[in-house]
Amino acid sequence: MTLKYGMIGGGKDAFIGGVHRKAIALDSTAELVAGAFSSNPEKALASGKELGVKRNYPTWEAMLEGELALPEEERIDFVVIVTPNHMHYPTAKAFAEAGFNVVSDKPLVHSSEQAEDLVRIVQEKGVVFGVTYNYTGYPMVRQAREMVRRGDLGKIRKVIVEYNQGWLATRLEETGAKQADWRTDPKRSGIAGAMGDIGSHAENLMGSITGLHISHICADLTTFVEGRQLDDDGNVLLRFENGAKGVLIASQIEIGMENDLRIRVFGEKGSLVWHQEDPNSLEFHRLGEPVQILKRGNDYLCDAAKKATRIPAGHPEAFLEAFANIYRGVAEAIEARKAGTPLTEFEFPTVQEGAIGVKFIEKVVESSHSDQKWTEF
Amino acid sequence: MTLKYGMIGGGKDAFIGGVHRKAIALDSTAELVAGAFSSNPEKALASGKELGVKRNYPTWEAMLEGELALPEEERIDFVVIVTPNHMHYPTAKAFAEAGFNVVSDKPLVHSSEQAEDLVRIVQEKGVVFGVTYNYTGYPMVRQAREMVRRGDLGKIRKVIVEYNQGWLATRLEETGAKQADWRTDPKRSGIAGAMGDIGSHAENLMGSITGLHISHICADLTTFVEGRQLDDDGNVLLRFENGAKGVLIASQIEIGMENDLRIRVFGEKGSLVWHQEDPNSLEFHRLGEPVQILKRGNDYLCDAAKKATRIPAGHPEAFLEAFANIYRGVAEAIEARKAGTPLTEFEFPTVQEGAIGVKFIEKVVESSHSDQKWTEF
Amino acid sequence: MTLKYGMIGGGKDAFIGGVHRKAIALDSTAELVAGAFSSNPEKALASGKELGVKRNYPTWEAMLEGELALPEEERIDFVVIVTPNHMHYPTAKAFAEAGFNVVSDKPLVHSSEQAEDLVRIVQEKGVVFGVTYNYTGYPMVRQAREMVRRGDLGKIRKVIVEYNQGWLATRLEETGAKQADWRTDPKRSGIAGAMGDIGSHAENLMGSITGLHISHICADLTTFVEGRQLDDDGNVLLRFENGAKGVLIASQIEIGMENDLRIRVFGEKGSLVWHQEDPNSLEFHRLGEPVQILKRGNDYLCDAAKKATRIPAGHPEAFLEAFANIYRGVAEAIEARKAGTPLTEFEFPTVQEGAIGVKFIEKVVESSHSDQKWTEF
Amino acid sequence: MTLKYGMIGGGKDAFIGGVHRKAIALDSTAELVAGAFSSNPEKALASGKELGVKRNYPTWEAMLEGELALPEEERIDFVVIVTPNHMHYPTAKAFAEAGFNVVSDKPLVHSSEQAEDLVRIVQEKGVVFGVTYNYTGYPMVRQAREMVRRGDLGKIRKVIVEYNQGWLATRLEETGAKQADWRTDPKRSGIAGAMGDIGSHAENLMGSITGLHISHICADLTTFVEGRQLDDDGNVLLRFENGAKGVLIASQIEIGMENDLRIRVFGEKGSLVWHQEDPNSLEFHRLGEPVQILKRGNDYLCDAAKKATRIPAGHPEAFLEAFANIYRGVAEAIEARKAGTPLTEFEFPTVQEGAIGVKFIEKVVESSHSDQKWTEF
Repeated sequence: MTLKYGMIGGGKDAFIGGVHRKAIALDSTAELVAGAFSSNPEKALASGKELGVKRNYPTWEAMLEGELALPEEERIDFVVIVTPNHMHYPTAKAFAEAGFNVVSDKPLVHSSEQAEDLVRIVQEKGVVFGVTYNYTGYPMVRQAREMVRRGDLGKIRKVIVEYNQGWLATRLEETGAKQADWRTDPKRSGIAGAMGDIGSHAENLMGSITGLHISHICADLTTFVEGRQLDDDGNVLLRFENGAKGVLIASQIEIGMENDLRIRVFGEKGSLVWHQEDPNSLEFHRLGEPVQILKRGNDYLCDAAKKATRIPAGHPEAFLEAFANIYRGVAEAIEARKAGTPLTEFEFPTVQEGAIGVKFIEKVVESSHSDQKWTEF
Repeated sequence: MTLKYGMIGGGKDAFIGGVHRKAIALDSTAELVAGAFSSNPEKALASGKELGVKRNYPTWEAMLEGELALPEEERIDFVVIVTPNHMHYPTAKAFAEAGFNVVSDKPLVHSSEQAEDLVRIVQEKGVVFGVTYNYTGYPMVRQAREMVRRGDLGKIRKVIVEYNQGWLATRLEETGAKQADWRTDPKRSGIAGAMGDIGSHAENLMGSITGLHISHICADLTTFVEGRQLDDDGNVLLRFENGAKGVLIASQIEIGMENDLRIRVFGEKGSLVWHQEDPNSLEFHRLGEPVQILKRGNDYLCDAAKKATRIPAGHPEAFLEAFANIYRGVAEAIEARKAGTPLTEFEFPTVQEGAIGVKFIEKVVESSHSDQKWTEF
Repeated sequence: MTLKYGMIGGGKDAFIGGVHRKAIALDSTAELVAGAFSSNPEKALASGKELGVKRNYPTWEAMLEGELALPEEERIDFVVIVTPNHMHYPTAKAFAEAGFNVVSDKPLVHSSEQAEDLVRIVQEKGVVFGVTYNYTGYPMVRQAREMVRRGDLGKIRKVIVEYNQGWLATRLEETGAKQADWRTDPKRSGIAGAMGDIGSHAENLMGSITGLHISHICADLTTFVEGRQLDDDGNVLLRFENGAKGVLIASQIEIGMENDLRIRVFGEKGSLVWHQEDPNSLEFHRLGEPVQILKRGNDYLCDAAKKATRIPAGHPEAFLEAFANIYRGVAEAIEARKAGTPLTEFEFPTVQEGAIGVKFIEKVVESSHSDQKWTEF
Repeated sequence: MTLKYGMIGGGKDAFIGGVHRKAIALDSTAELVAGAFSSNPEKALASGKELGVKRNYPTWEAMLEGELALPEEERIDFVVIVTPNHMHYPTAKAFAEAGFNVVSDKPLVHSSEQAEDLVRIVQEKGVVFGVTYNYTGYPMVRQAREMVRRGDLGKIRKVIVEYNQGWLATRLEETGAKQADWRTDPKRSGIAGAMGDIGSHAENLMGSITGLHISHICADLTTFVEGRQLDDDGNVLLRFENGAKGVLIASQIEIGMENDLRIRVFGEKGSLVWHQEDPNSLEFHRLGEPVQILKRGNDYLCDAAKKATRIPAGHPEAFLEAFANIYRGVAEAIEARKAGTPLTEFEFPTVQEGAIGVKFIEKVVESSHSDQKWTEF
């Protein structure tokens, strides 16, 4: 464990902070040495104490100052930002500007203006900047990406991507559920609800696998649960620059759907189908041939899929392992930067992808308010 | 076998005519006694001879005349129209006006004007008129319909219905494939391709299960295969009168998808999921409870689902049995009409549903050409 | 419809008689013209009247006499025996000896002595004799058989075949359920319960697909439901002449299992997996390659699988269609016999296969009572 | 991370050692501080260096001596034994006798004599001793166990447990594959091949879920791959003390089967079905009711299942998380021992279960050589 990291947010009661820590621990990718685990300094310190972190800061500003005060080789190698959305921008900006590598949860920031600002800073400072669109870490997603790239499907004609959830089918935010609370609050979540929280994952998964660029969108967002301020459901038609068409569905009111992210990619020669809840398999269809089911852990897979796996076929890997793969990619890039040989291709979602995600959210909301059919992307 | 029927179309090389005949034979619902099996008189007579039909006519006009010349009790009880789409209207109109009961394949006719004309004739003449949206004949579709009706799902919020096929991913119509040929020809198929052929099934399935009425649509139709005149793919956003939202996808270029009609219905209290390729099961989700899988043939199902099944649970029933259920419903209505006690509720898709289907096709095409987001239904 | 048939058994309240009639009607394979539908003459005649059969006999003896009294061209072409098991032998023997073609339900008869007698008669008289091990009629079972025959799996090493049901998990026979009543009564069902009723189907499916010959068996039969006289559960180890091993499981007390007949065949080069409740698919595994899912209705299937299908891929076929395929095979053989060119290979389970099934039941029961591990087959 | 551990075996090229380390790291259950990573001292030291372990020993004997020489509070809290099977006994014995807590891979040892010796030592010394039958760590396995215990299934009648693999379908051990090499060598693997390696997992899973005690077994082991010394396939009939019956299948020659451990439990009131390759679901069948699918991460699950999960429903957990749950249980017991309040019930497989597993292997081999049907357990 050669790398050291600090964390902003992710204290007690938080969900995603623990996921990041487990994902990093799984492969001993880095050691947690510093943290400012809450916007509330008392909670922050209590959480840090519970986690046994060496450098426990009351605020992220204190952490930035404290780390900069250390000799360079003792400082954290990267900071992980797992706060509610509205805190991504100031923290990411401050640490990146100070030369720290950053991993930020998605969606990256609240506006394209902020996103472009971050993109600029990252380029200027040469820092490594990852965005945890974690689903692209699944080995079979990487296999799918490779199969599209190498032409197994031919030219892509159509993509259907969905992220179906049901946990916000009732007004859960009124019951004290912290996860529901901030996600339905525009101040912390941003201009979109379900579309920001999970629609953006769907967009990134689609982009990552197909490499397609959206040209136009037509969105219909809905708030089904009375009293809620943000969308909890949305359906989007897509047009891509290459002429392909698409459908993107994201919902948090579909009762019984747990974390049903799924994608279908149809090309001129073949098709791929992948489901996040059955992540070790990938369906491959070719014209006039039997369906193939490719499975994680087998020799017939591409290098990227093999590299992203730890245990043999049939011993299922899942969500945390996929998450850990994002961190493996980040760590590789950080090691390369430290070694003075920075990478030019990254095996994790970059700040640029994060910026596209922010634009996607903005455009979906814009289109949803528009009477015009197609909103340019 | 007390009923007698005649058939228009469905001769040699036809696909769907044989399906209708098998579906009727399965339950000995009626006996085929007459036919005009092709628009080509020679082929018609040859097909009729091969089928061993008693009253073999060269043309449907001859059949109409011939049957009318018989004593009433010897005439066919109903006519089955399984021609390419463009012949539905003249034949259905002529037979219905002459007082014959009619079963017509879908889509009913080419225009709402024609459809309304048929609706009027059916009402005036009091004939039984069924449209073979056959997928509503599946027992588990009837179970789904009943569960929505009795409130198991609460108010419906969202519907996703898809009809995914891949058999027209290449220009099959150039290879002499008869099924592809007429379906891609606007003269015989009408103004829509995939949307008319299978999108209309999806619309009917959705309407049949949910009882929802479409208020607005926003469609994006595409012709992916070069040289083809009609759409081979389409994605549609839907709004319903009760405030529900929907997505309808129909495609014939999704390689590997065989006859993948599927529907998801999400309500305030629960959800249903059904797939045509696994028709004996129905997924039922309720807030906070384990998923239930309901299976055909069990005592816990509703009466309509039980009535639509023949053999015990675990002995799968499929497409032909569902088709046969449509004919059972038609036969019941015809028997009731003969007995002088006509039914007021029908267990088959009526001419009214057929007319909605025609309107759906028109509105989808209209919307697809429009720059306006929402086209009123 | 050129063939004519008569039926013994299968009247009101019976289950399987109706299945046979529907299976024959589906393809218009033959016309029901005669019947003795019950061992109770009054019930027989009432059932025949309801079915509208032309020659309605009070007893099977009367039917035999009556048919023989007709000019040969007016007689039934074959008789279908769907009585409880104990009546298979006398009826099959009498009709076969009189030169009639016969289709008998399974298990063929109560003892190997009776079975060999029937085999002898069939050979002497040259009649067509089918046994309705209906599951071999599924197209994907025929595909599996062909793949084994042509060596796709290499030498077979292991077979696991199961027939899991749960409908007799309680003492249903005490509730007036006719199907449960005779199946649990040794006088009508024979020496075995679940093993005779469904274990014999499993044995036949295994033999039909693999062509393997059993050399030794080791069985453990159980009666779980108190008061029941016959086995309702059984587990069997198998050894085959070629050195392969096997497991056969048959049970009627496995709650929730509906008609879960499934088989796995493992060879030196590949494996096959098939489930009756998902009959349109066949899993094919090859060393080091992605799983293939073969689906009914596709061009890549073998001729026997294609011949056994009626409608396109994705339009599921099921139990009744498979049953109908058995009758298609029988009809072909009868037509060939009538034409003076009798077949030498049959696309239906023959009297010889029926005799093996009877022996299987005897040996399973013998082994279950034995302290010796292996009972020679 | 309060606990410290050492590892014996698990160096470079080993598979399972890394799995143990990841499983422990995932939850920061303990810190790896010592190791003797190979039976070859040079390899041991090289591996330890690569892993960055503080106290790197050339041999396990040196490790035992070294740790004992440390002040008690600095010593490892437990040792993890992940050597080939033949080294389990001497190492476990030595460390347990010296008062160290132990986690050993399965099968525990080579003979019941050795197993009983370990059981005795564990009791005398009061050490915590876990055996990594890791599959019992899955949340849905714990749910199944609870449902059996609380009577949801009624009295158990039948169990079918299978562990199907195909990776040894060819003579892989001749190709330099280390995993295949020692597993097929009686000196290192013991008297059984597939039955020892995976059959013992199946036995433990069955015992863990059902609580049933085997009374008699009847086994048929086979070596299909020429030249191999140990069984690569086995089928076993089981009888239990309560009158229940069972079938256990374990194979490593079933091509295409990856790590297909599955169990079906049938009781008088209901049934359960679970598959390791789809570990987040559990099928529950009750007489006359729709199938229920219980899913990990939901509130309706029992406490033990909830405690064994980390992330929400729909975010799949898998093999490593289940493995980690075993270590969580071990750590709890060690903490309790350290606190002077040793547990009496354990949430991990104990040395006693390990001993039953060894006996199972012995009895399976004995039965397989016997002409007698039933071998007493």
